[in-house]
Amino acid sequence: MPPNMDSPANTPADVLLYAAPNTNADVLWFSRFHAGDAILAFTAKGKKIAAVPLLEVTRAKKESCLDEVLNMQDLLDVAKKTCPKANAADVAALLAKRYAIPAFSVPPDFPASLYKRLLELGVRVEVANAPFFAQRVIKTPVELNCLRASNRAAAAGFKVVENILAAAEIRKNNALYFEKKPLTSECLRAAIEEATLRAGALNVTGLIAAGGDQAVDCHCSGSGPLFANQLIVTDIFPRMSATGYFGDMTRTYLKGTASPEQKRLVKTGHAAQKLAFTLVNPGVTGKSVHEAIQAFFAKEGYKTGPDPATGYQQGFFHGLGHGLGLDVHEAPTLSLRGDTVLEPGMVVTVEPGLYYLGLGGVRIEDNVVVTQDACALLSKHPYRWEIA
Amino acid sequence: MPPNMDSPANTPADVLLYAAPNTNADVLWFSRFHAGDAILAFTAKGKKIAAVPLLEVTRAKKESCLDEVLNMQDLLDVAKKTCPKANAADVAALLAKRYAIPAFSVPPDFPASLYKRLLELGVRVEVANAPFFAQRVIKTPVELNCLRASNRAAAAGFKVVENILAAAEIRKNNALYFEKKPLTSECLRAAIEEATLRAGALNVTGLIAAGGDQAVDCHCSGSGPLFANQLIVTDIFPRMSATGYFGDMTRTYLKGTASPEQKRLVKTGHAAQKLAFTLVNPGVTGKSVHEAIQAFFAKEGYKTGPDPATGYQQGFFHGLGHGLGLDVHEAPTLSLRGDTVLEPGMVVTVEPGLYYLGLGGVRIEDNVVVTQDACALLSKHPYRWEIA
Repeated sequence: MPPNMDSPANTPADVLLYAAPNTNADVLWFSRFHAGDAILAFTAKGKKIAAVPLLEVTRAKKESCLDEVLNMQDLLDVAKKTCPKANAADVAALLAKRYAIPAFSVPPDFPASLYKRLLELGVRVEVANAPFFAQRVIKTPVELNCLRASNRAAAAGFKVVENILAAAEIRKNNALYFEKKPLTSECLRAAIEEATLRAGALNVTGLIAAGGDQAVDCHCSGSGPLFANQLIVTDIFPRMSATGYFGDMTRTYLKGTASPEQKRLVKTGHAAQKLAFTLVNPGVTGKSVHEAIQAFFAKEGYKTGPDPATGYQQGFFHGLGHGLGLDVHEAPTLSLRGDTVLEPGMVVTVEPGLYYLGLGGVRIEDNVVVTQDACALLSKHPYRWEIA
Repeated sequence: MPPNMDSPANTPADVLLYAAPNTNADVLWFSRFHAGDAILAFTAKGKKIAAVPLLEVTRAKKESCLDEVLNMQDLLDVAKKTCPKANAADVAALLAKRYAIPAFSVPPDFPASLYKRLLELGVRVEVANAPFFAQRVIKTPVELNCLRASNRAAAAGFKVVENILAAAEIRKNNALYFEKKPLTSECLRAAIEEATLRAGALNVTGLIAAGGDQAVDCHCSGSGPLFANQLIVTDIFPRMSATGYFGDMTRTYLKGTASPEQKRLVKTGHAAQKLAFTLVNPGVTGKSVHEAIQAFFAKEGYKTGPDPATGYQQGFFHGLGHGLGLDVHEAPTLSLRGDTVLEPGMVVTVEPGLYYLGLGGVRIEDNVVVTQDACALLSKHPYRWEIA
């Protein structure tokens, strides 16, 4: 529970958070309470406490892991007796007094308005560095099971994509048809969304099913018709409705017959992932693993940098991976910014990618947990990519 | 675009935001760019500009309404030459200099860490009040159409619920069966999620299909078997994938035969909504409308307050309505806190509810736009509630 401050041992500060659990992973992690409106969560004497909106009090008592649930409305009414314009910061100041809290430590994304008001009210507030809860980075066995379940939802998505591509017909000009209609990125995404929903996931905004050059802009979701003999990058990151944990997996497909260049691209992407699996170990930095993959691609003759004509990035221009949990992107990172030394229990995606205009993109993504002496896969799905 | 500051006319401050558009409605409204990672968005000389992660640059240029898109990575590299620990605040300071911005106005939920760092760097920063963008509260014709589309997705959910309830069998002890299995809240929610997904919505976390006393805890999603002759509150608030706008509607159902008390409860809830529609007018406060509905329920003999035995709130204990747009709860509010005077173009839900342990709950919710002299419905679905 102690936040990641510069000198956590020397500070008696208690934690203070203010955000909606559904959109703030720290608050969800702390409270295990799913809600769309903001709650004021804090620690006092080793207990987890939150002031929640009137309508959430009963549910928070039943569903959260909080030791104590307070009614925000009652507290606001008290605070307003002293100051008619009182807000959540005034309530936090009141609680600091009531629970004899000497200082609060707040996360980097704590609202500036409340921070400013707390200082005005004479409350000591320290703004901590990210990650706020150091323990969020080290996953528990229960959390690892949540991540496995989320990845199973992603795998359900790939299964549907493979079935559709297998059933799709190749017509004139390599146009793909499925159930007598042109097969589009939108159609694939809708099928993936339905499959992940049925597997218990929500919140799949931004998932990717992008063909050919569209996939070279590697956060492009893809749009319009898909074609035979074209690489199709499919990136699925479902969030489980019950737990809030994300899965994150990518497979690259091709319907029809791959060219030698496409085959070598996919083979090299896959080899890079296998190499990375051997490098993600406790004691190394994310940066060192990323750089090893950069070097591997360079050795294989795949160059990285902006295309002079279009300005588009080409090659391997994104991070090799990122932490995964209640956020889809969280610490630690496997990239040039990855100074954190990997430790057992950390979870990262491993997603080497290569992208070239004209040729298309390949990305193959799984996620792993760092173990005592290596890493172990949390995601599982075959790598079959050429679909006849 | 000017934020809602105490003295907007007197300040030359430009806007500064830092958050992920997918989870921060102000950033999405400002940029019309859908992304899961944070962007640094600001105004300068009347232009909308944002520094976005390297991977988003191409997509932001294509898909956003920004006048200028900058590469955050390049800017960070420049800032790090002066300070190796430079973050987004250092980039904002650099941009303030580059664009000759005298001061920034930031929203109340701007990250405290960046606010603090900007002050350290000598940048003038004013923390504005909510709502940050006054114009977000007044919906344009395009936005009204987005809201209508989101409500159509909600209505698709009700249609499925009605079909399931019509097809459900009543077995021993009033147990409901659908397709030979006990009908549960989870089963209804899954069917709603699938219907809203097919209608183009995502992100339906927290939707409600709660029967009997479960609905008295009015944010409880509902769980377990549903029964005949029991009120079932169904609250659907889908967010459209393409636009980010929310719909928000509630219908209350009963499979079987309603008791006279249940009939009177539903009839009174419906009458309250019809009354509220006549009261939501330009020139009145949200508070006055809410209080009129409180008075109406009291006149009808429905008391509000905590149940002495259980502590559960009973009666009409939530706000009559809330603003709706890129957030599911936004300004203005129809409640005791509703001091804002309603104006043409404002959108609010109208959702009177009554809840009593033993009897169950009723809530009927639609949403309306305030017009020049009245209000007009943005949502449409029949109110049939007793299903034989």
